[in-house]
Amino acid sequence: MNFASDNAYGASPEILTHLSTVSAGAADSYGEDAVTARVCERLRAIFERDIAAFPVVTGTAANALALATLCPPYGAVFCHHESHIAVDECAAPEFFTGGAKLVHLDGDHGKITPAAIEAALLNYARGVHSPKPAVVSITQASELGTIYSIAEIRAIADTAHKSGLTLHMDGARFANALVTLGCTPAEMTWKAGVDTLSFGATKNGALCAEAVIFFDTAHAQEFEYRRKKAGHLVSKMRFISAQLEAYLENDLWLSNARRANALARRLGDGLAAVPGVTLAGPVEANGVFAWFPKPVAARLRERGARFYDWAQEPERVMVRLVVSFATPEADVANFIETAKG
Amino acid sequence: MNFASDNAYGASPEILTHLSTVSAGAADSYGEDAVTARVCERLRAIFERDIAAFPVVTGTAANALALATLCPPYGAVFCHHESHIAVDECAAPEFFTGGAKLVHLDGDHGKITPAAIEAALLNYARGVHSPKPAVVSITQASELGTIYSIAEIRAIADTAHKSGLTLHMDGARFANALVTLGCTPAEMTWKAGVDTLSFGATKNGALCAEAVIFFDTAHAQEFEYRRKKAGHLVSKMRFISAQLEAYLENDLWLSNARRANALARRLGDGLAAVPGVTLAGPVEANGVFAWFPKPVAARLRERGARFYDWAQEPERVMVRLVVSFATPEADVANFIETAKG
Amino acid sequence: MNFASDNAYGASPEILTHLSTVSAGAADSYGEDAVTARVCERLRAIFERDIAAFPVVTGTAANALALATLCPPYGAVFCHHESHIAVDECAAPEFFTGGAKLVHLDGDHGKITPAAIEAALLNYARGVHSPKPAVVSITQASELGTIYSIAEIRAIADTAHKSGLTLHMDGARFANALVTLGCTPAEMTWKAGVDTLSFGATKNGALCAEAVIFFDTAHAQEFEYRRKKAGHLVSKMRFISAQLEAYLENDLWLSNARRANALARRLGDGLAAVPGVTLAGPVEANGVFAWFPKPVAARLRERGARFYDWAQEPERVMVRLVVSFATPEADVANFIETAKG
Amino acid sequence: MNFASDNAYGASPEILTHLSTVSAGAADSYGEDAVTARVCERLRAIFERDIAAFPVVTGTAANALALATLCPPYGAVFCHHESHIAVDECAAPEFFTGGAKLVHLDGDHGKITPAAIEAALLNYARGVHSPKPAVVSITQASELGTIYSIAEIRAIADTAHKSGLTLHMDGARFANALVTLGCTPAEMTWKAGVDTLSFGATKNGALCAEAVIFFDTAHAQEFEYRRKKAGHLVSKMRFISAQLEAYLENDLWLSNARRANALARRLGDGLAAVPGVTLAGPVEANGVFAWFPKPVAARLRERGARFYDWAQEPERVMVRLVVSFATPEADVANFIETAKG
Repeated sequence: MNFASDNAYGASPEILTHLSTVSAGAADSYGEDAVTARVCERLRAIFERDIAAFPVVTGTAANALALATLCPPYGAVFCHHESHIAVDECAAPEFFTGGAKLVHLDGDHGKITPAAIEAALLNYARGVHSPKPAVVSITQASELGTIYSIAEIRAIADTAHKSGLTLHMDGARFANALVTLGCTPAEMTWKAGVDTLSFGATKNGALCAEAVIFFDTAHAQEFEYRRKKAGHLVSKMRFISAQLEAYLENDLWLSNARRANALARRLGDGLAAVPGVTLAGPVEANGVFAWFPKPVAARLRERGARFYDWAQEPERVMVRLVVSFATPEADVANFIETAKG
Repeated sequence: MNFASDNAYGASPEILTHLSTVSAGAADSYGEDAVTARVCERLRAIFERDIAAFPVVTGTAANALALATLCPPYGAVFCHHESHIAVDECAAPEFFTGGAKLVHLDGDHGKITPAAIEAALLNYARGVHSPKPAVVSITQASELGTIYSIAEIRAIADTAHKSGLTLHMDGARFANALVTLGCTPAEMTWKAGVDTLSFGATKNGALCAEAVIFFDTAHAQEFEYRRKKAGHLVSKMRFISAQLEAYLENDLWLSNARRANALARRLGDGLAAVPGVTLAGPVEANGVFAWFPKPVAARLRERGARFYDWAQEPERVMVRLVVSFATPEADVANFIETAKG
Repeated sequence: MNFASDNAYGASPEILTHLSTVSAGAADSYGEDAVTARVCERLRAIFERDIAAFPVVTGTAANALALATLCPPYGAVFCHHESHIAVDECAAPEFFTGGAKLVHLDGDHGKITPAAIEAALLNYARGVHSPKPAVVSITQASELGTIYSIAEIRAIADTAHKSGLTLHMDGARFANALVTLGCTPAEMTWKAGVDTLSFGATKNGALCAEAVIFFDTAHAQEFEYRRKKAGHLVSKMRFISAQLEAYLENDLWLSNARRANALARRLGDGLAAVPGVTLAGPVEANGVFAWFPKPVAARLRERGARFYDWAQEPERVMVRLVVSFATPEADVANFIETAKG
Repeated sequence: MNFASDNAYGASPEILTHLSTVSAGAADSYGEDAVTARVCERLRAIFERDIAAFPVVTGTAANALALATLCPPYGAVFCHHESHIAVDECAAPEFFTGGAKLVHLDGDHGKITPAAIEAALLNYARGVHSPKPAVVSITQASELGTIYSIAEIRAIADTAHKSGLTLHMDGARFANALVTLGCTPAEMTWKAGVDTLSFGATKNGALCAEAVIFFDTAHAQEFEYRRKKAGHLVSKMRFISAQLEAYLENDLWLSNARRANALARRLGDGLAAVPGVTLAGPVEANGVFAWFPKPVAARLRERGARFYDWAQEPERVMVRLVVSFATPEADVANFIETAKG
């Protein structure tokens, strides 16, 4: 019963198999290979427009390299105070940018609002004494398992753009959000005003593969230099690109995400019916946040369940439960039953 | 006939298979998994002492993260002017260290000498006006396919240590050097005075796996923070560690290297016998450097051979030919025949 | 009527005169001169112990260089969310440290508390995912014109030290705080647990002179390299040191601060008696923070008064009024009268 | 007899006096004052065009901030291997740029050539594996006391521009070069293709004042943010600007430079006539480089002369002698006499 993270599980068999397929023979290195060309072409088709797409191996690299390309050393990035870039990456964006400031915004259920951005911008309109506002970053799905509607993304994009900022989306759980909204990748990104995307695959079935996607291809050269300089240009790139290729093939990414989301809803529904347990927010992707009486959390851990505490109160604890593409169905049922006691 | 680089070929089947093996089930992420623990233990055994070992995905990351841990922002690293850290990593060490200086030293056949280090140190003994000498870095095997003898390593280590510098070895082709010297990993490193090692696997059969090894384990915590902050802590780390595990299993790393070296010698011997072709240096690992009459180089390329030019003269060109663990034997024979014309 | 900042006024005549005095003849450059040696000796006497002291030209340089010496790139600095390092230095500490995180803490009247530090540390005890807690920084006097008592400093130092953090004090207005507390420099710093001090002089009468003071002299070499590398090692250092020498001579620094504080109290008392005006906090140094009805603020500006707004409400505005060593007494009286209308 | 450096002497009395003049009354801080506005206007007149000019306190800050504005973190700067930015600034440009590479070029008498730049560019045309060529930097007068002719500057500028690089001039001794060439500031800079200038004043009579001058004013905003973020925006900026104002007033800068150059020529001529002494290069500005028999150098030091050794041979030493605006004439005569023995 491992609900600690969606990176607790391995990789989809289709992706592992594809690694062996692409391994045969000689190929140009450092991304000049045919697999990389194909996957970039495939992403172009999926996003229905020209893009500049670059595989990388971690979500932190995707986010930090994207932000460094978008935000000068003397710039500021506005993001939710619980976002991955703010609190889970050991200040990687600050390092990659050369010292930019991440401005932490409040917002319910892990989401920021145009009003919060505008209020913060007022404090950063003081000339060179404050970093120059440069980027707004949102996480889709958010760290609290919630999802921005397309209208919400549009409103944030408009707020960012009218002040000259660009909009970055951390899509570590992009597929999970997409299948919930039931829209196209284009609709959830550039059509709603997103300028740059960290497109995640690792949490949803890959071994170590993400892609940074710029809808403004003018960033391509700078990104390529930064990726190399950060040690993130993998020499045998075909092995990273192949993960993405298999991930996108036959909509594996979408079926993986649907499965995880469905199990998360089942988990949420089951827990909501347990006496003493309260959901802390809506279950919109593959994460469930719930308040547990402390004895319930303790009992689950005694039975081997793995999950993180997210907040503490004297009598109860808010826990995070993340379901992955590969979480066994039986674990979900077992977890609910164990919670019931 | 691809002799462009040893990263032109894919991965050893044993390594690919092992990825599927370790993929099953849930595991702790970010390096807390059992595979990573096992491979670190295996490296300890191979190096016959306690070490701090950390998997990363690229050689540039291994070198730059190691150097950043060893050299302060106001420090200097002394290395060969043709070394990978000096000219092939887009100044990654300068970025990771926060602005340290790489001091480029001359030296025959890609190797530096104690005398060159001592001469350079004289220019860096001027207080705060120059960066503080901190690290000597050597490449084993070197970028010119040559190998430092153990006595040479020992002499460089002594020179470094007596001035308070530490010795880093870029071992992107560690196995190729080791099988040539016929010594133990311990003898080629810490027993000869090496303090820190970038232990390569990618060029010799892995997909994307290297390890940074500190013989002084006091660096462990700092390195772990730096790796995370640079986006190089892979969440599903078991997939990187598994590559190293299979690489070391049954001495795959050594047999892969022996094969590549043997083919390189065969290629070198064959080319030395071609009229007009001269070897530019000894063939000690898996690289062959040779002067070709320009028509010979042109003919080879017409027949589809891939290789890099390393230096130019009016009538001839010095080429680099790199043989990998997977280069077909037929390609070597074919290349020699084509060179003969 | 310029109350915008204490850096709106020039320099004390004694300091200007001393510049001409030390200008005669040749001297060693880059801080090897006799004036610098003398002023460091004088600071040692004032602080009653061995110290490592280094003149610099700005408060931002003092703070950022000190923090970079104390906090690794992967570290975190805990400070008040309104502190100068947090919001007035264009994220200089993030740049100088190589990407450290400044954790913004709440606290009344510009001061942080042990409880706030401890609560924040809980969020930064997650291994490499969060930056490593390294430094607590307090501002004395604070950005809101308040002063930490010695007991408060002691309590913060104990909290920092027991978790392995060091305590930095931004003393841009050190003298203003000192004369209020009526204690010795030693009592307000190292005897209370302060490890490193940015000792300000510019706001209180110098042209461009601060000193970074380490009570642990082991930091000296690193600081000297960092100062040089940041372009902050002035070649004709005697001119920076001379400012500090004259500043400390005959207790000029203390008399300047007493004058400014006394005028600030007079200004605060006068304004408190104006109908509709409310002090926003105690007047403990040379700053006055007060809520003004908006027409009052507007009238003052019409009459040429200069000051900053600090917070807004629909009917009133909180203003910051800073009195310097050279603010004319008549301006204080005039300001109060104008406020009365 | 201090010939160690032109920063061994104090400041011109006119500059010291002006500091007291501008100290009176309140003024806007951080460069918003009238003195700064006036000096920028004066520089515009001197350079005969619109410019963006920014006072800073050290030459290292001027160079490193300028280069960071011109060169991305993944860029390369081409400069002489003996240039100040290459060897005297503790790798400040590498720090300020975020890890750019300084490519060291050879060249007689401290000067680089178009051919050397073009040869180096060939090695930096390998895509992302090498830093992206961005800037050529020349020093006028050079570290070896020589001067680029306008034709030489023009040729270097053309070489830089045709490859998309910009040309930076380190003018720490700008005035010394200018009076030798007898041209206008415009002719020695933008009319010859210089894009950005570090305009020195400290070595030639100021206390601590340089100016960064962009002939392309589009760089202004970025520079201002970078200056602030580096702690180089002096709060009481009028005191830095006033130094420049007095420096330019009544051509003080030119008369100071003429005096220093004339004394350097006298020193060079006198030494050239000493048996056993040989000039190492032409005396074109205020520096004299000469080979001394070792006993001569020893005798001079015994009599209290201060100077640096620049190169060593078994029997003789090459020394650097720098004459400043304030070096006593008697010291020059005395030095020559002492050299004669």
